[in-house]
This record gives sequence, structure tokens and C-alpha cells, in this order.
Amino acid sequence: MNPLAPDWLAEPDDANDLAAGVWPDTIRRTKKGELSVGGMKASALAERYGTPVLVLDELHVRERAERTRRAFETAAARHGGSARVYYAGKAFLTSEVARWMLAAGLNIDVCSRGELETALAADVPAERIGFHGNNKSVSELERAIGVGLGTIVVDSPIEVERISAIAERLGTSQRVLVRVRSGVHADTHDFLATAHEDQKFGFSLEEAESAVARIRELPSVEFVGLHCHIGSQIFGVSGFRESASRVLELHERLLGGGPVPLLNLGGGFGIAYTRADTPAEIEALADGIVDAVANECAARGIDMPELAFEPGRSIIGSAGITLYEVGTTKPVVVDTGDGSAERLYVAVDGGMSDNVRPALYGAQYSARIASRTSEAPAALVRVVGMHCESGDIVVDNEYLPGDVVPGDLVAVASTGAYSAAMASNYNHVPRPAVVAVRDGEARVILRGETIDDLLARDPGLVR
Amino acid sequence: MNPLAPDWLAEPDDANDLAAGVWPDTIRRTKKGELSVGGMKASALAERYGTPVLVLDELHVRERAERTRRAFETAAARHGGSARVYYAGKAFLTSEVARWMLAAGLNIDVCSRGELETALAADVPAERIGFHGNNKSVSELERAIGVGLGTIVVDSPIEVERISAIAERLGTSQRVLVRVRSGVHADTHDFLATAHEDQKFGFSLEEAESAVARIRELPSVEFVGLHCHIGSQIFGVSGFRESASRVLELHERLLGGGPVPLLNLGGGFGIAYTRADTPAEIEALADGIVDAVANECAARGIDMPELAFEPGRSIIGSAGITLYEVGTTKPVVVDTGDGSAERLYVAVDGGMSDNVRPALYGAQYSARIASRTSEAPAALVRVVGMHCESGDIVVDNEYLPGDVVPGDLVAVASTGAYSAAMASNYNHVPRPAVVAVRDGEARVILRGETIDDLLARDPGLVR
Repeated sequence: MNPLAPDWLAEPDDANDLAAGVWPDTIRRTKKGELSVGGMKASALAERYGTPVLVLDELHVRERAERTRRAFETAAARHGGSARVYYAGKAFLTSEVARWMLAAGLNIDVCSRGELETALAADVPAERIGFHGNNKSVSELERAIGVGLGTIVVDSPIEVERISAIAERLGTSQRVLVRVRSGVHADTHDFLATAHEDQKFGFSLEEAESAVARIRELPSVEFVGLHCHIGSQIFGVSGFRESASRVLELHERLLGGGPVPLLNLGGGFGIAYTRADTPAEIEALADGIVDAVANECAARGIDMPELAFEPGRSIIGSAGITLYEVGTTKPVVVDTGDGSAERLYVAVDGGMSDNVRPALYGAQYSARIASRTSEAPAALVRVVGMHCESGDIVVDNEYLPGDVVPGDLVAVASTGAYSAAMASNYNHVPRPAVVAVRDGEARVILRGETIDDLLARDPGLVR
Repeated sequence: MNPLAPDWLAEPDDANDLAAGVWPDTIRRTKKGELSVGGMKASALAERYGTPVLVLDELHVRERAERTRRAFETAAARHGGSARVYYAGKAFLTSEVARWMLAAGLNIDVCSRGELETALAADVPAERIGFHGNNKSVSELERAIGVGLGTIVVDSPIEVERISAIAERLGTSQRVLVRVRSGVHADTHDFLATAHEDQKFGFSLEEAESAVARIRELPSVEFVGLHCHIGSQIFGVSGFRESASRVLELHERLLGGGPVPLLNLGGGFGIAYTRADTPAEIEALADGIVDAVANECAARGIDMPELAFEPGRSIIGSAGITLYEVGTTKPVVVDTGDGSAERLYVAVDGGMSDNVRPALYGAQYSARIASRTSEAPAALVRVVGMHCESGDIVVDNEYLPGDVVPGDLVAVASTGAYSAAMASNYNHVPRPAVVAVRDGEARVILRGETIDDLLARDPGLVR
């Protein structure tokens, strides 16, 4: 045990193993010890697409989408109700991903004109799209209302009037949800409940009541229900339970003024980035949340509304791995307080430009040598990127075989969500391709960039 | 005073004023109260380029570059020495910026193939380029050595051998600096000094000695000096003094084995993001650092080497402003512990995709209404973006006239460094144009993106 290792990271018996729940469903070690995913060997992927490359296990994504929809539908059906699932496009959206979601019976959540255009261009029916955002522009709303979007989640009084004016001008009526701040903010293991929430989204529970009253006065806006989202990377149901209880109190009051057919409880279901993460299975989460809603409705003597959920990460996060090539390794001696210890820095050919989550959120990840196995004793490593910034960390803490060397391929797990989606060109580094793999075939679903792509934005370099 | 305001943020007498040192040199209020920069009105820029748009005050950048070079040259000359300045391209680099730096007598620091190609394409002479990075690839090094780059900053033992092999193969000799970890890490107001530094860059002082010995054995690699970089956004000289003392001890020992003509002390000079920030003037920093080096050299009885410095932010940071349009505003009631208070959320049409620093580093900024002045009482605002994330903050704490409304243009100060450089397409939001302004003229120096640019990376949407 290296004294620099955090408590949650146990030294593994085998630093080649693939922790259950952390890696894509189809990941394997070949007979020669190489990683393969979707039937494609890491070396073949690296050779064909270069490194870094983000590899998505298509069957994993489709299975999680299906399973998530079934879990919520089944849970709701047990109480005589129904549920629908929106895939949160902000996690990672391309036309291919949108088509997978449609095929699995999901709807799509978008939060910008760019995501909306991607979904529409992928032939997602407008009525199956929900539109989020605290600051949708007039032109975004015109486009959304013009194509007949399923629901728009209203975020402010200004937006109520804006939607009404546009829908009226276009001679149509727009279905809207009203987003509320329930005062419950949840993260992995806990939740915080306050009277007021200091954040930009939605209406307080009090304000929402008058917003709904206003909407009900407007002929071109149709109120269909409340929306509430309580956080990210949540492992249990207690936060959802508390939030649902608060929101249903308002929901019940609103029933006095007309129908409230829908209740959208958002997303935020967590995944395992490391073996220390133990999120509940989606069926357990679905059952727990839906049961809580059903119980609360029963206690209030009201019908359970149709429920809606918006998972993104829990569908696509664990399906992705990023393959990097090791460029340099360097042992660094570190003071421990009562002595010193060694950390092996393993530098790869990507970093915070292709995955900013470690720098942005202090996110932890898991890594393995992808191109081979090794019997070398495990060493505590920090996988770092090639960016000119000391915070450019890829995997903060991991044990890898101590003989990791330049030229090795390293796979980082659970990069399907919020890595390509948030990628930058920091340090003028081109963004990697995203490649879908399935049954021994691979195809690009998001084109990688070249340095020429970057230079093409510089008018001083046009020849 | 709003109880939600942080201690450092005083309620201003006039929430239209432009704090000295925070805004570009040529910023003005027109007679009608609108902001102008480089002689271009905010409304004209917004109309021509859309919002958000990042506006760079060309004369400000050029003046800071010149002044920085002069400050270090003058300080060194007083001790009979010389100094050179490299512009750290990672802060923000386009061909136009590179040309400004050349014209001001600066050299250019790059840290990736993309930055190197940008500089070369802008006709920066190779000998005026320095190359940084903890994980330069073989192909990057081949390109750098092939074009005859001025200096490469060596970061690991592996790289020493790599450079030697490439230079030998190309029949040339490469000048290198050896980057050391001095154990000093500085930030705004303080520094921390340890025996060992737990970070990815460079060699420990002990390791550096043997690296230099090895380099001196190699016929195709020429050792020219040590390099040390101690941190970012530093306001004083004490950290530099401590670090220079440690590094010069090694420098002196290395003189026993041959010449050590250069010492590069990196960059990290801070700027004022808000009126609470009080960085030293560059002349005071230059004098303080160079005097410390000269004194240390005198005490050791050695000649002062040529000095090199690598500022980026302090040259270009304060020259940039970002113009946004307000889309929605929303008062939010917040618990204060012994009551409640109100914060006005002002949502603009950009956010963490065009400036991730608030989310990434908790960075504070300053903002003003750009399209008009207002006599309305100041309100504590949080300027937030349009992204689907509660951490999407543009300016965490600021006082603006309380009548700020949708349609107002808001200018955010000091966005010249590390905003466009780190921009992403999160939520499928196109990146804004960067426009240089001077003497009433404006021109694009980095093209803004369109949604079509984003969709063009999606092979499923090619028609």
C-alpha cells in the first residue's frame, strides 16, 4: 500500500483486472492480454483512428437505454401509472446516439439550439423532444415552437411571456413544464434540503404557483406539469424522495386549478467511475423513486401523474473508454509528512482538452494498460495529460503494473458522458474522434479534428 | 450592502464605473453612455459579430508586450545583464497575436504541435520559438528539431534521449533547457515551499543535475540552462525570490561542468480580474525578480546568466472583454442564516463554453452593462450562462444597476487570456469570434463558429 494512495483505493491483487460495473459490457482481454471492446482490439482502434480516441460500446448504450425505459415503465405500471424517459443529450449527443435512443423507445432532451438541430437533423420527431435551459433565446424558442416540440421546460417568468407571444404569433399552442427548485440538492451519498436554493434554474415552489396561474390564463401555452432536477451522480433514492414530497405538495395544490398530467423528476443517476463507487441498479432506483411518488400521491389522495425522467450519464457514461498512448513516465518523490513516497507519473497524449472532468470537478477515474497484461508489481500512478498545466490530470489515483512504459496503450473507463461533450482545443490540441464499436466493427460517429481544422479558424492563415 | 456579497466586493457608488486596471486601456463610455473599446461601440460590435463576442484591444496588447520586454531588459541591464521575454501562447494564440509579439520584440512559447504550427504559419522565426511540455511526442519533437527551434524545455529523462536520437538522426544539435521543480509553488498572495513537489512537470533539483550531466555527454544536445515555473496569477516577488535562490544553487554547481548561459524563470504574473486584485506593476515585478537574481549571483560570486521570462496572461488578459446579451433576469431569495436576502440572476447568451475559468478555478470577474449607463440603485447580481449546469457561472459576484434587463449588453472584463483558449462546444454551443479592435476598426482574428460547423463533425448528418 502506497501511503500516497487515497483510502478508497485498495491495492489490487491484479492490476490488469477490469472492475465489474466500471467498464463497458463487451470489454474483454484477448488471449494475448490486450483489451477489446465491441469485438475490436485496442491496438486496431489506435492504429486506425490514432490516439486519443473515445470508443463507445454501442450494445452497452442501447441496452442501458432499453433497460432504463423498462425499469421506469415497470415501476410505474405496478402502481397503475406510466412513465417516459428522455435521454439527456448534454451528456453526449450525435445523430447516431439520437437514433439509438429512438430505437430504444426513449425521447430526447436538448438544452440549446445546437442540440435541437442535431436531434432534428437525426429525424427525431419533434414531439419526442424536450427543451431545457435557463436562457433560451427568442430565436431558439421560435425554432422549437415552430417545429412543434413536445415540451418546453419553462425556467423564468420572462420565458412564460416569451413562449406565449411566439406561440400566439405562430398560431399554435405550446406544452410546457414549469421547473421548480425544491430546495433539495443531492449528490452521491447525501442530500441537502433548504428552504431556498441559490441557483439559476427554475422557480421557487411559491413562485411556481403564480407562474402556473399565469400560464393557465394564456391561450397559447398549455401547462402539463412540474419539473424538478436535484443533482448529479446520485447513488440512492432519499434525495428524490424528499424532493418528490415537496414538489407533490405543490402539484396537489395545482390540481385545484386544472389538470396536471405530468411530473418530471429529472435525472442525475450515478455511475461507477471507480470500483469504490456503488450506485444502485437502475431498477432499484426506478422502484424506489416511483414507489415514493406513489406513496406520496396515495397519502394525498391524488392520482399519480405520468412520470418522466432524464438520465444521460447512467445510459452512456460507462459505455465509453478513452484510449491514450503513454508518452513519458516519471517517478516523483513526494513528502508524506513522516517521510517520503514515490508516485509514478504516466503522461499520455491527451488530457484536459478531451476530458476536463478531473480538473473541473476533481472527478476520479479508473485506468488499465490496454495493449497488454503485465505481471509486474502494481505501482501507484497518476495518469496525466500533455497540457501545459499542472492540474491536467486524467486519472488522479490508480494502480497500474509498474512496468508501464512509453508506447503502451492506456484505457480510461467511463468516459462516455461529459468528456467529448465538454472537449476543448486548449493548447491547440485537436479533439479526438468518437468511434462506435459493435460485433467487431467500428465506425466514426463524431469526426476527430486535425491541426488544419484548428488553423482554419485563423483568418491570418488562410492562403 | 447585500449580505450575500463577499467581503472583498464593496458596493460601488456608481455601478457604471470602470475600475482602473481591470478594463482594456482604450475602453470608454460614449456620450450616450455606451461602452466603446478601440474606438468601436459595443452595440456596433454586437450587431456586426453577434453575441457573445470576445473583443481584444490591440493597442493594449502591443503596449503590454513592449512594456514587459522593456521592463525585464532594463532591470537586467542595471546589473550589466540581459533578458528576453517569451509570450506564453497557451494564454491565447492566433497568427495575428504572434505577429504583434514579434513586432514588440518578444519570442513565442508553444506547448503543442498545434501552437507550434500556428507560430510557424504566422512566420515566427523558428529560433524565436521555445517549446514546452511534459509529454512532447516523437513527431512533435521531429518537427521542432527539424525546423531548428530556438530552445526546447526538457521535462524528463526519456525526453533527453528522445531529443538526442532525433537531433542526431537529423544531423543537427538542439539547444535545451532543463525544467526543474524548485519546491516553490506560488499563487496570488503567498507561496508554499516544500522539499518535493507532487506535480508532473520537470526534474527535482537532484535529478536535474544528472540530467544535465547526461545532456553534456550527448553530442546532439546542447545544454543552455535551467527552467523553473512556480505558479499562476502571482502578485508579488517573494515566491520568485525563494525559487531563484534554490535554482541558482544548482545553477552554480552546474557551472563546474561547463557554461550555463541562460536562466528561465517562467511566468505567472497576475492581473486584476476585479478591483480587489492589486497585482504589482510589471516594472516592479521585473525589478524585484531581477534584483533578487543579481543579489543571489553576487553572493555566490557568479555571473548573472541571461534571464528569460514567459508571461502570457499579464500581456493579453486585461486587453480582452466579452460582450454578451442578457436573455433573462430572475431575483432569487437565498437563506443567509439569520434571514434571507435576494440575489439577482442575470442570464447571458454564453457561459462555461466560452469561459470555463469560473467553473474550473472559481475565478472571479467584473462586469458592466455595456449598452447604456443607468442611475438605478446597484443590485448584487450573479451573471450566469445559458448552459444546462448550475455551476455555469460567468461572474459570480458583481454589483450592476438593478434595472438590468433582457436585451442589455453586458461586458465582462479581463477575458483576453484562457477563455477563448479553453473554449468548448459544451451543450453544442458554437464558440464566439475573437475580434481585434483598434482606432475605430475591427477585424476577426479567430473565426466564430456556426451550428453548421458543429454538425459537420457528425458523419450521420452529411447529406
